[in-house]
Amino acid sequence: MSSPSSVPFAISLGDPAGVGPEVVAKAWTMREARALPCFFAVGDPASIAAVWNGPLREIADPEDALKAFPDALPCLRVTDAGPVTPGEASVDGARAALQALEAVVGLARSGSAAGIVTAPVGKTQLYGVGFSHPGQTEFIAERCGVSAENAVMMLAGPSLRVVPITIHLPLADVPAALTIDLIRARTIATARGLQRNFGIAKPRLVMTGLNPHAGEQGALGREEIDIIAPAIASLRAEGIDVTGPHAADALFHARARKTYDACLCMYHDQALIPVKTLHFDDGVNMTLGLPIIRTSPDHGTAFGIAGTNSANPGAMIAAIRMAGDAALHRRNRDAASACD
Amino acid sequence: MSSPSSVPFAISLGDPAGVGPEVVAKAWTMREARALPCFFAVGDPASIAAVWNGPLREIADPEDALKAFPDALPCLRVTDAGPVTPGEASVDGARAALQALEAVVGLARSGSAAGIVTAPVGKTQLYGVGFSHPGQTEFIAERCGVSAENAVMMLAGPSLRVVPITIHLPLADVPAALTIDLIRARTIATARGLQRNFGIAKPRLVMTGLNPHAGEQGALGREEIDIIAPAIASLRAEGIDVTGPHAADALFHARARKTYDACLCMYHDQALIPVKTLHFDDGVNMTLGLPIIRTSPDHGTAFGIAGTNSANPGAMIAAIRMAGDAALHRRNRDAASACD
Repeated sequence: MSSPSSVPFAISLGDPAGVGPEVVAKAWTMREARALPCFFAVGDPASIAAVWNGPLREIADPEDALKAFPDALPCLRVTDAGPVTPGEASVDGARAALQALEAVVGLARSGSAAGIVTAPVGKTQLYGVGFSHPGQTEFIAERCGVSAENAVMMLAGPSLRVVPITIHLPLADVPAALTIDLIRARTIATARGLQRNFGIAKPRLVMTGLNPHAGEQGALGREEIDIIAPAIASLRAEGIDVTGPHAADALFHARARKTYDACLCMYHDQALIPVKTLHFDDGVNMTLGLPIIRTSPDHGTAFGIAGTNSANPGAMIAAIRMAGDAALHRRNRDAASACD
Repeated sequence: MSSPSSVPFAISLGDPAGVGPEVVAKAWTMREARALPCFFAVGDPASIAAVWNGPLREIADPEDALKAFPDALPCLRVTDAGPVTPGEASVDGARAALQALEAVVGLARSGSAAGIVTAPVGKTQLYGVGFSHPGQTEFIAERCGVSAENAVMMLAGPSLRVVPITIHLPLADVPAALTIDLIRARTIATARGLQRNFGIAKPRLVMTGLNPHAGEQGALGREEIDIIAPAIASLRAEGIDVTGPHAADALFHARARKTYDACLCMYHDQALIPVKTLHFDDGVNMTLGLPIIRTSPDHGTAFGIAGTNSANPGAMIAAIRMAGDAALHRRNRDAASACD
């Protein structure tokens, strides 16, 4: 799944004072052991040099990454982060994070990058420099001309993929936010995303209920009967292999996980608890529904440990691999279509 | 933790057509390998004979269990379940399940049993014979003279113990059901239960938030600010070691689990998803706050596989061991108090 490609991946360094620069550098040191595709960092090379003394090569063009990659971590400078003190968030740092993000999206849109991996940003800091999106995902979707509703967050680890149907809502607002249309849109995007990025021809999907025991035939809530089951029925009628609503607590043990490719969940914690219980250190966030490939490690800036050389690069490595694999699957799919 | 005791444990067989009789019999075959304390089955011996051809000994008195146990599974007949066909629920079976449950509570209350383990019942069937409690736990609490609110459900596996603060409620009703008083009562019962049944002198407790990211300082809901944090502050002021509210999705990975003895969760799936993800086959339900020791395997009647010899006895074995260990901890505690 990781054969060489002629187009490298672009990794935005995120907040220069967070753990982004460190985990990108550590991922580069594991490039052979983990068979990672060629990539280059995008941001301010000084933020890497502040936390790492390995070989770093500033490049002027993404193409130069291919030649540099075996011997040094290539870095495309698109910003000056100012003086970087790991762990100390700043306005300059937030601006640098935003410029790196903007740059990688442009590189992928233009075909100069095979896909993007985004290191974590500090949202509070970004809001301080006028960033008006809830997170990086919505920003990327807008820059790709995709509405935020159609950019679907999938969290994936080696043994589990989950998609939350509602995300950053107070729990009390979740029941009213669930609609047949929303469930349908997320499920269709998930099925397509698994085909396109994971090479799964006929994805097997499962869906949770909202209530304990999936509502016990209405005794513990009616959303299963009124909303979720009808959504599932209409999706199945269109040929999508999705079952449920299932009791959420019985879906995530090892035997159950073997029976499906992804689980649609009704709200944030229902999806994030199982995937982070199992894959806290190697969970990847992949955005489905975009024209470009985009993954990110499922952790934050971790300002508290930045600069201490203790950040675990597992999730960054997994995110780079998943982006690389997605590019291969998309190529194979395009090649197969071309032969039709 | 499993030294012999002079008082045996009583195990109600649950619905005679469910997997209860099979897992009790299988647990007996593992008595030496798993160092189980002495126990006897309570119900209709015919329901065991219908699914198992190992040595079964009908006893007339709980005391006889001690002598019989090494060579045969002792069974106290308290009911006639009628003809038992595994997998086929019946009115007679539901009545037998109820009589066995009533009997074991009486035996433990009178001191003839060191504690009870309850095999699963079919709730639909029980309701059909006039059972008016939501489940076995509430019935047992009433028979013990404890109000249902003070009988606290803890789900426990080898690496995680969780206590849901609200349980069988529609998700939409959870936010309104959370009160400072309820959180306080459940937390105090949990701390005491860990001291009494697990020998943990100073239990370390953690508590989840209700909302994603524990509400993000109010941006994603105010229950953390208005209810959960004040409850935690008042509990800490009384010397209870409880922290939070924490983002629920960051609490259940391996490193996090090492930092606490039990996690208080706001609702059913928030508690049950992590424990069943990790311990689907050996999860135990222990009721805290009762004068007697009561555990049960965290699975249902599984009518669909009853009689096929395929039920996994892991949870029943774990439930018996946990009851045995709790009895030892209670004895040690009583002995220590007597020496004061």
